[in-house]
Amino acid sequence: MPTLTPALVTRSSGEAFERDTIERRDLGAHDVLIDIAYAGICHSDIHQAREEWGGAIFPMVPGHEIAGIVREVGAEVTKHAVGDRVGIGCFVDSCRECENCLAGEEQFCLKGNVATYNGRQYDGTPTYGGYSTQIVADENYVLRIPESIPLDVAAPLLCAGITTYSPLRHWGAGPGKRVAVIGMGGLGHMAVQIAHAMGAHITVLSRTLAKEAEGRELGADDYHATADPAVLRSLRGTFDLIINTVGADIDVDRYLSTLRLDGALVFVGLPENRQTFRVFSLTGARRSLAGSNIGGIRETQEMLDFCAEQGIASIIETISADEVTAAYDRVVAGDVRYRFVIDTATIPTS
Amino acid sequence: MPTLTPALVTRSSGEAFERDTIERRDLGAHDVLIDIAYAGICHSDIHQAREEWGGAIFPMVPGHEIAGIVREVGAEVTKHAVGDRVGIGCFVDSCRECENCLAGEEQFCLKGNVATYNGRQYDGTPTYGGYSTQIVADENYVLRIPESIPLDVAAPLLCAGITTYSPLRHWGAGPGKRVAVIGMGGLGHMAVQIAHAMGAHITVLSRTLAKEAEGRELGADDYHATADPAVLRSLRGTFDLIINTVGADIDVDRYLSTLRLDGALVFVGLPENRQTFRVFSLTGARRSLAGSNIGGIRETQEMLDFCAEQGIASIIETISADEVTAAYDRVVAGDVRYRFVIDTATIPTS
Repeated sequence: MPTLTPALVTRSSGEAFERDTIERRDLGAHDVLIDIAYAGICHSDIHQAREEWGGAIFPMVPGHEIAGIVREVGAEVTKHAVGDRVGIGCFVDSCRECENCLAGEEQFCLKGNVATYNGRQYDGTPTYGGYSTQIVADENYVLRIPESIPLDVAAPLLCAGITTYSPLRHWGAGPGKRVAVIGMGGLGHMAVQIAHAMGAHITVLSRTLAKEAEGRELGADDYHATADPAVLRSLRGTFDLIINTVGADIDVDRYLSTLRLDGALVFVGLPENRQTFRVFSLTGARRSLAGSNIGGIRETQEMLDFCAEQGIASIIETISADEVTAAYDRVVAGDVRYRFVIDTATIPTS
Repeated sequence: MPTLTPALVTRSSGEAFERDTIERRDLGAHDVLIDIAYAGICHSDIHQAREEWGGAIFPMVPGHEIAGIVREVGAEVTKHAVGDRVGIGCFVDSCRECENCLAGEEQFCLKGNVATYNGRQYDGTPTYGGYSTQIVADENYVLRIPESIPLDVAAPLLCAGITTYSPLRHWGAGPGKRVAVIGMGGLGHMAVQIAHAMGAHITVLSRTLAKEAEGRELGADDYHATADPAVLRSLRGTFDLIINTVGADIDVDRYLSTLRLDGALVFVGLPENRQTFRVFSLTGARRSLAGSNIGGIRETQEMLDFCAEQGIASIIETISADEVTAAYDRVVAGDVRYRFVIDTATIPTS
C-alpha cells in the first residue's frame, strides 16, 4: 500500500490551497523517505499554481525548497542514514546518461529531468512537492544539510540559494570583481550574501532604497535606486557581472551599459515577455547576455557546505498551512522579507 | 607643407565617389608613411558613407582594410622599416592609458579610439581612410603583413579577418568544438577558413545553398539552407558557438535553440534594429548572447601570422577607382565573392 501523506493541494489554476492527502510511492532500494519539516515558497510555485507557464498538472502540490529528516532508507541506500538532515531542490531524478547529467549538470538534462512537482516521473506518474509532510526520493537527488544551518532557513537554499550561487561561481564572482544584483527579494538577498562571502564587491540595484539598511547588513557595498534613470547612467562601465533576479521586464541596454569589458548580464529571474536589446550594446565591450537555471546536485551540495562555512542562510518568515494562499499574493506584491517558509507540522488536519 | 594625397571622396550621404586630394599630416617621429596598394570595401564603409549609423563626417574617404609598403619612417620609429609590407585596420590611435588599452584591447578603448576614417584624431582633425594612395599613421597601429600573403588578399584580413578571428579565439573554437557561421559573405568566408584552421567542426548556416561548394572548399563540414525552418529545428542542441556575420535581423531564439550547454551566439554583424529573445532560451542551457568587435593590435598581428602559417587569405574581386560607387550597390545586394578590393593605383587622375 502506498503511503498516504497530508499535503496542501490546489485543484485548478489559482485556486486556494486545501488540506488533503497524496500518495507517495513505496520505498525503493535506492529511495529515502523524508519527514519534511519546512518548505519554502518560491515565486515559481506561484507561476505554476496559477498556470502562468502553461501545461500545469492538477491537482498540484508545489514546493521545491524542502528541508527535513530522513525517516527510512531503502535496502541499498549508502548516501543517507535515518536521522540525517536533508533537503530536496527543484528536481528528483534525471536521465543520468546524457552528456549534461554525466557532467553533473542534471539541471540541464537533455531528456528533461523530473521536476519535484508539476512534473512526471519517467514512468508517467505525476510528482508532488514539499507542501506536504513526507516525500520519497532517490538518494542521489537528496542533499545533506550541514548541522550548522537550521532546517527552516536552509529550505530556501535548495532553490534561491543554488539559483544565485551557480551563476556567481560560473561567472567568477570573487575578490577584485564588481557584482551587481538587480532586485532585493528572495533571490536577491541570497545573491548579496553569497557574492559577498565569495569576496566580490556588491552593488544592489533595486527600484527603491526601502531595503538599503538590510542590504548593507547582508554584505552590499553600494545600494542604488534604479527608479532614477540618472543612476544607471552614472554606473556606466562599472560591473563585471550583473545577476538579474527580477521577473519583470528590464531595459536590457541600460543595464548592459553598466558592464565593463567582457561583463555579463545573467538572468535568473524569468520575465515572460520577450526582452529586447541593441547589438551595439554587446559589441561595444564584448558583453554577454546569459541565463542560468538552478544548479546540479554536486554544485547544490557545494553551495550548502559553502553557506554553512560562511554562516549564510535565508531570511525567512515562517507561516502555517492556513496562510499559504494569502502568502502567494504577498509574494507577488513583493511584501515578504525575504522568503516564506511553511511549517509543515501545520499541514495535517487536527 | 602637408602631403596632398589622391583619394576617393564622397561629399555627402550616399553621393558617388569622386577623385580628389586630401591632406596627410607631416611625418612625426613615431609615424610611418605608407604607400597604399590595396583597400578592401567593408560593409561598414557603406553604412558610414550613407550615414546609416548617424553622425558622419563629410567629405569622407572610407577604407579600413589597408595593405601597402612603408615609404618613409619617422626619426624614432623602431617597429617598421622602409620597404616593409604593412597594413592598417579599423583604428589608427587609442588613449594608451585606459585599462582596456593597457590590456591590449584597444578596440574597446574607454576614451574611444581614433577610427581610421570618419573619426577624429584626439586634436580634432578628421581622419581619412584607405581609398587613397598614401596614409600616415603611428607605428604602434601599423601591422606587419607576412611575406607569404599577397597584399591584395591581405587587405580584408585587417577587418574581416580580425573580426572573425577574435571571437573564434575568445570563445575557444578548436578541436572538438562545433562552430556554426551564419552568413557566407565577406565575414563568413573568413570565419569558415579560420575556424577550420583552428580545428573546429564547421557548419555554415546560409539562406540558400548557392555557395555550398565554395563553403565546403574553404573548410565547412556541413552546410544548411536556413530558409527552411525545419533545418534549425533539426539542429537543436548542436553547436558550442555560433558566429553571426549578417547585418539583417535574425530569429534569435531559433538560433539559441541550436546551442548546447554553455553555448554562445556571438554577433559580429551589426543589425540596426533591436533584436528580441525569450529569457527561457538562455536559461534552458546556460546559453549566452554576445558581441565582438574587431580586435586589438596584438591580436590582429597574431591573426595575420596565423593566416600566413595556415595559408589563409580573403577571396577577392579587385576593382578600379571607377567601380567603387557601383560596387557599394553590389555589396548591399550580396553580389560579391567575397570582398571587393580597390587597386589604389587607379585612384590618381591620369
